Amino acid sequence: MRIDIITVLPELLRSPFEASILKRAIEKGLVEVHVHNLRDYSTNKHKNVDDYQFGGGAGMVMMIEPIDACISKLKSERDYDEVIYMTPDGETLTQGMANRMSLLKNIIILCGHYKGVDQRVRDHFITKEISIGDYVLSGGELAAAVLSDSIIRLIPGVLSNETSALTDSFQDNLLSPPIYTRPAEYKGWKVPDVLLSGHNANIEKWREEKAYEHTRNRRPDLLE
Amino acid sequence: MRIDIITVLPELLRSPFEASILKRAIEKGLVEVHVHNLRDYSTNKHKNVDDYQFGGGAGMVMMIEPIDACISKLKSERDYDEVIYMTPDGETLTQGMANRMSLLKNIIILCGHYKGVDQRVRDHFITKEISIGDYVLSGGELAAAVLSDSIIRLIPGVLSNETSALTDSFQDNLLSPPIYTRPAEYKGWKVPDVLLSGHNANIEKWREEKAYEHTRNRRPDLLE
Repeated sequence: MRIDIITVLPELLRSPFEASILKRAIEKGLVEVHVHNLRDYSTNKHKNVDDYQFGGGAGMVMMIEPIDACISKLKSERDYDEVIYMTPDGETLTQGMANRMSLLKNIIILCGHYKGVDQRVRDHFITKEISIGDYVLSGGELAAAVLSDSIIRLIPGVLSNETSALTDSFQDNLLSPPIYTRPAEYKGWKVPDVLLSGHNANIEKWREEKAYEHTRNRRPDLLE
Repeated sequence: MRIDIITVLPELLRSPFEASILKRAIEKGLVEVHVHNLRDYSTNKHKNVDDYQFGGGAGMVMMIEPIDACISKLKSERDYDEVIYMTPDGETLTQGMANRMSLLKNIIILCGHYKGVDQRVRDHFITKEISIGDYVLSGGELAAAVLSDSIIRLIPGVLSNETSALTDSFQDNLLSPPIYTRPAEYKGWKVPDVLLSGHNANIEKWREEKAYEHTRNRRPDLLE
């Protein structure tokens, strides 16, 4: 898989891809992540990529021309499955979407910044608009990192133990049951006896019950 | 405001706080962000912070002892409004929650990693569990960065133009209307005439209509 991220703040995206699971996925050649500085595609001498809103109002708007130049260059080099724009009014990311997107070959992710992008970019270049949740961030960079992380960890071979992702919350519309590790007792707080019993069938039954109970309490909408 | 983030991957959190709006907020003294490496609080000689699950199963579990040590040290130094755990089965972050949390003084954010934390940490030390959305990430670090960003940008003085945050999506349960900037025509794609008219009342009316129309089309749930 190849992910091309277009941003005005490439430096913000450095450390998320240089640590832990994403770093290992890149090193193993399971994914390529290329971050493009939109300013390199600016056509004016001040390297501007944003300008005032038509009609007035607070906040700058990202201009269409540099974005067109960057997307067009990438598209001339390979085919892309999706050109994604990260925006709070996009389709809300779910685990199901992440699962499906982990099967794609090449995607472009455009990070909004300032007040957002010129609407004509969304009308003519973007194939999918995604939100990571109902809140506003200072830019689309963290959202792009979140989307990339949610996808990349699902690519076969990225997680060291492939069963690990399958037992995550949401994969079966259930939240995960409680988990415990050593010590068996800490400050008088004990691990449930069943987990120490060595009786696998009982442990599985307990986990299933707890997962249902936890989901019913916290997220009954997932059971509907 | 002071935010203490506890993590096994402090290096992942470097660049998000060293760029753009968050960097400026820190430089202006409007927020302090302290990242703590959980390994510094490990009590065993291998600096382990995780161990196998009781009862078996894929994925490691973060141990209670180093987390207790780190949280207890911080609490001995000042009072905290909330000790937050980032987890996909927590309460889903909304703009309303971000608004309320931007008024707090001191918060701790614990990032889950591996399979999650020992349940006794959640039962005895955590006061609030937050999810940034219905998807799983390789760790809570990006989620902590997202939560911090959503809160910090709302602290008065952080955004250069304070009206900017008030006209964001979700602040009035409406998505933002389309925005445009120069050029007025690009490849035959034109900016709507009304935005070039200079007639403020008409522009406001158009924006309000578009915001409703856009919200009705994309997120009718916000209008209920």
